[in-house]
Amino acid sequence: MSKQGILFILTGPSGVGKGTVLAKVLERRDAYLSVSATTREPREGEKHGVNYYFLTREQFEQTAAQNGFLEHAEFSGNCYGTPAAPVDEQLSAGRDVVLEIEVQGAMQVHEKRPEAVRIFIAPPSFAELEKRLTGRGTEDAAAVQRRLETAKHELTLAPQFDYIVVNQTVEQAVSDVLAIMQAESCRAARREYQII
Amino acid sequence: MSKQGILFILTGPSGVGKGTVLAKVLERRDAYLSVSATTREPREGEKHGVNYYFLTREQFEQTAAQNGFLEHAEFSGNCYGTPAAPVDEQLSAGRDVVLEIEVQGAMQVHEKRPEAVRIFIAPPSFAELEKRLTGRGTEDAAAVQRRLETAKHELTLAPQFDYIVVNQTVEQAVSDVLAIMQAESCRAARREYQII
Repeated sequence: MSKQGILFILTGPSGVGKGTVLAKVLERRDAYLSVSATTREPREGEKHGVNYYFLTREQFEQTAAQNGFLEHAEFSGNCYGTPAAPVDEQLSAGRDVVLEIEVQGAMQVHEKRPEAVRIFIAPPSFAELEKRLTGRGTEDAAAVQRRLETAKHELTLAPQFDYIVVNQTVEQAVSDVLAIMQAESCRAARREYQII
Repeated sequence: MSKQGILFILTGPSGVGKGTVLAKVLERRDAYLSVSATTREPREGEKHGVNYYFLTREQFEQTAAQNGFLEHAEFSGNCYGTPAAPVDEQLSAGRDVVLEIEVQGAMQVHEKRPEAVRIFIAPPSFAELEKRLTGRGTEDAAAVQRRLETAKHELTLAPQFDYIVVNQTVEQAVSDVLAIMQAESCRAARREYQII
């Protein structure tokens, strides 16, 4: 019996802390963290294949045309996408894969991979999200306001996901995500349990 | 928002160790362990409402006629059943409930309560189950043989359950069941997550 890995999608509004949660999850459980592709310029210290796959717009569009992305979108003039090939390679080798992507991207992946397990990281309250986004201090008030408007819409989509993990404390959220990963590996539909 | 408890069904063939696993699970997570009703005589030290609800056959049949059992069956001339009322009381109060029942009973509960989360505890191999059942030494060879025949059939039903937990070691099985309970409480369909 050849065991197929499980595809997990971690999503949630900007500022909810999904990156922090995921980093701690991956300290405690093995999974391949998918690397995105982008057409934007590498920043100081960023490495191709580690932080991003840096593609020209031509390469990006060619990959998209060949259905080579699980999801892709354009933000502020740059293209971003999740290349399907490395994900499928890991899954076939029996390793679980985690995609950390924004909410619209997560909806797109669901259409292509309905078997993916989708986890929505939610803030304990909208006020808390507001506090976290404002607290960053890296953006002007108008930019924060735009993020909050987007977040408000995204939170209405949460019930469409498989799981909602409320990021009340990082430890609790990490524990919930780890429990979901462990539980999903016990799903009867995946187990292919055979009497020997 | 009034939170409803989750109904978990733990099942598996005789001898697989579900009682041992469940006892350890309940040391580490709160849940109401459902008490069965039976028409058999109480044994030395058994208490009504603790080990079983001891009913007369008339009381049992009346409850069954009123649809008061989540499942019931007759074994060796005695009736056994899971009374619905205490289970529903706990669920309404927001407490999770665990039923530890045999496989046919678990199938019956699913018909009445399709929302119940059904966990099948499976042996690592059939040979291992054989060893455990023989090792008990409390029954003659013919009785063990009958249990094994039943177990063989029950194992073919495992894929119909939500989760299969292989009882390779008790610690791993306990950890898997706890993860399933934690993950299920994060299910979007149950969360009723609201933006505040």
